[in-house]
This record gives sequence, C-alpha cells and structure tokens, in this order.
Amino acid sequence: MQGLSCGTSRIVGCRFSVYPMADNFVDVILGALKEVDTSKVWMETDDVTTCIRGRSEHVFDVAKAIFIHAAKTGVHVVFNGTFSVGCPGDSEGDSYMSENDERLNEEASSKEKVEVATQFALYPMNNPDYMQIIADQVEVAKDHGTFTKGIHYASRLDGDANDVFKTLEQSFVNASKTHERSHVTMTAAISANSPSKKDK
Amino acid sequence: MQGLSCGTSRIVGCRFSVYPMADNFVDVILGALKEVDTSKVWMETDDVTTCIRGRSEHVFDVAKAIFIHAAKTGVHVVFNGTFSVGCPGDSEGDSYMSENDERLNEEASSKEKVEVATQFALYPMNNPDYMQIIADQVEVAKDHGTFTKGIHYASRLDGDANDVFKTLEQSFVNASKTHERSHVTMTAAISANSPSKKDK
Ligand SMILES: [Ca+2]
Repeated sequence: MQGLSCGTSRIVGCRFSVYPMADNFVDVILGALKEVDTSKVWMETDDVTTCIRGRSEHVFDVAKAIFIHAAKTGVHVVFNGTFSVGCPGDSEGDSYMSENDERLNEEASSKEKVEVATQFALYPMNNPDYMQIIADQVEVAKDHGTFTKGIHYASRLDGDANDVFKTLEQSFVNASKTHERSHVTMTAAISANSPSKKDK
Repeated sequence: MQGLSCGTSRIVGCRFSVYPMADNFVDVILGALKEVDTSKVWMETDDVTTCIRGRSEHVFDVAKAIFIHAAKTGVHVVFNGTFSVGCPGDSEGDSYMSENDERLNEEASSKEKVEVATQFALYPMNNPDYMQIIADQVEVAKDHGTFTKGIHYASRLDGDANDVFKTLEQSFVNASKTHERSHVTMTAAISANSPSKKDK
C-alpha cells in the first residue's frame, strides 16, 4: 500500500532550523535530536541550518519529531524551514529512496500535544497555474480544520502540531503531483509556546 | 537620482522573524526595534512573524537594521524571512511607495561590525528561465566577495552583515527586473554569534 508520498523516485528535502529562545538552546536541540530516529533520511547539519533528504514521508516525520520534542520542553521554540522537491540541481539516486514508508517517529510524536501557530507559503516553480495550485491547497487546509486566514505572502494555520504538519505535508505532496517533474518549494514558520497573544 | 530599487510602483514585502537564542529574547528584540526608524515602511507584527512593506530600499534597510541591532548584543541571533515582489495578490497602491529613496537606518547600521553566515534561495515564479536567473545572481554574489558555496537548495554567503545584505538586496532587485511584472521571492537565514564552527 502506498501512503501519502511524493513517490519513490523523487527525493524530497527540507533545510530548516529549530530555534529555542532560551539560554540553554543547545541542550534543547540536542535533547530533541536524541529522541528522534533519523535513520531513514540523509542528514547534514552546519552552523546555520540542518538539511534532511529522502522520501517525503520520512522528511516530514523527522522534521515534525525534532520540532515537537524541542517544543514539549515548554520553551518558546520556532521551526523555520523550506521543503523542496524536483529541484533540477538535486540528485535523485540517493539510497534513502529505497526505504519503506513506515514512519519511525510517528508514534512518539502523536503522543505529544503541542499547540502551534504556523505561517506557510507554497512556491510551485515554472508553472503559469501556480496561483491556482496555491489556492487549491488553501482549500485542503480548510478541510483539515487547521486554516485560520490568509495574510500577506502566506497562509496561517493553527492547532495541534500533529494536525498542522499533516496539512503541510498534504499541501506539499498535492502541489508536487501537479506535473510529473514539478519543482515545488514550501516555506513554513511554526511557533510554539510564544508569550505573544495569538493573532488568530 | 535613482538608487538600487525595484522601482517606485512595485511594492516589496518581507515577512521575517529575528530569533535571539536567549532567555531575554523579548528584551533583545524590543531593544533592537527601539533603535530602528520604521517610518518609511508599512509594518505589522503578529505572534509568529513581522511583515514590512514598501520600497525595496526601505524594506532591506529596516530588515538589516533590526537584525544588526539585535546581533550587536552578542547573543546568538538568527534572521529568517522571505522577501517578495510582484505577488499577484498584493496591493500596489500603498502610500509608502511615495517615500523618497533616502535610507533612514543605513548610517547607524554601517557602523556595526557583525560577522554573519547566510543561506539564501531565490524563487523567480512562473518563469521557464528561473534556473538561469538564479545562476546569474550567484555570479553577483561572487563579484561581491560574499559567496562561499552552493549547498542543497540554497547558496551560502559569509562576511560582514552590511556586505551580505547588500548582496541579498542586489540579487533580489536584479531578479525582480527580469520581467516587467515578475513575481520573485527570496528566502534568507542570516546567523550571527553562533557557537557552532563556521562551515565555510
Ligand atoms: Ca532555503
């Protein structure tokens, strides 16, 4: 059975950071990483971001898990990153594409209740219909019950982190399937435990 | 005289956050904002990001100033945001477009020496030549002496914050001029004072 996926031959990537607004930010990040099984994604961290690549289900599984395990500490934490598929400069033949679709971190992530506010934007590249593709995914978010409103340059989602990540993944996968070789990117800023009043 | 600009009729926006990795993150942000003159941009802050809109020179001037004044505290601070021009959903008639091109924060920003590591990506929308436009702006960054290397899904810049913001602005403005009504977005993660070893 084929789960929600960009397909088995299209490598998906996410370049992101998780920002804990706390003096012990290194401990928060290392603590979260220790709880996440990253064995089904290619992963490289530098001094600015972390990049993970593999099948879409594992990229979303790992990104969500790192964020959730950092946010459950109660510290104000933000995930900020860009998902990408079909970039002409990317290599497709990575061994991580042969992993099966069983998500290694879903069970642990789904147990945590983390309320998030999210702003995301889809960028379907080289496509004259791109505004319609974006509008269609806003409808998906409305169906999921996570959509709050449109804002300048982005859409806002609110709710449980597991639900919001499900909307992000579905929107991204849908947009990636509009053409056989489509290049799509999606930015997302996902915030938990902010002291600011929610602007829903 | 016309300075570096997307033109006087095309409103530019930036949706961004500045993340200080410190317990006193609110003070760092409020302290930085107090030093920045934002009177030439439309500005709105919610619980996830800040959005500024206006002429490109003022959007870049204000974004750079907020980041630099936060980073000069010595705290590990990251700017993460998306610049946008020509979004079909954006309104063009904003009163901020009639401001002159004198930058209100350049003098103060240029006095600060903040070393940064940056990853950025350009997204020229609805354009079959987009990969060439991106490649051309990498050449601009090389000419500026700020380009370090290409990485998955992004390009890396290193150097003084003032020099790096100049490269980002020039690349964005150049890409915005490839067509009369072009829609271009650019993501940038700009990091200062990281405890991690620079991956140059
Ligand atoms: Ca990126």
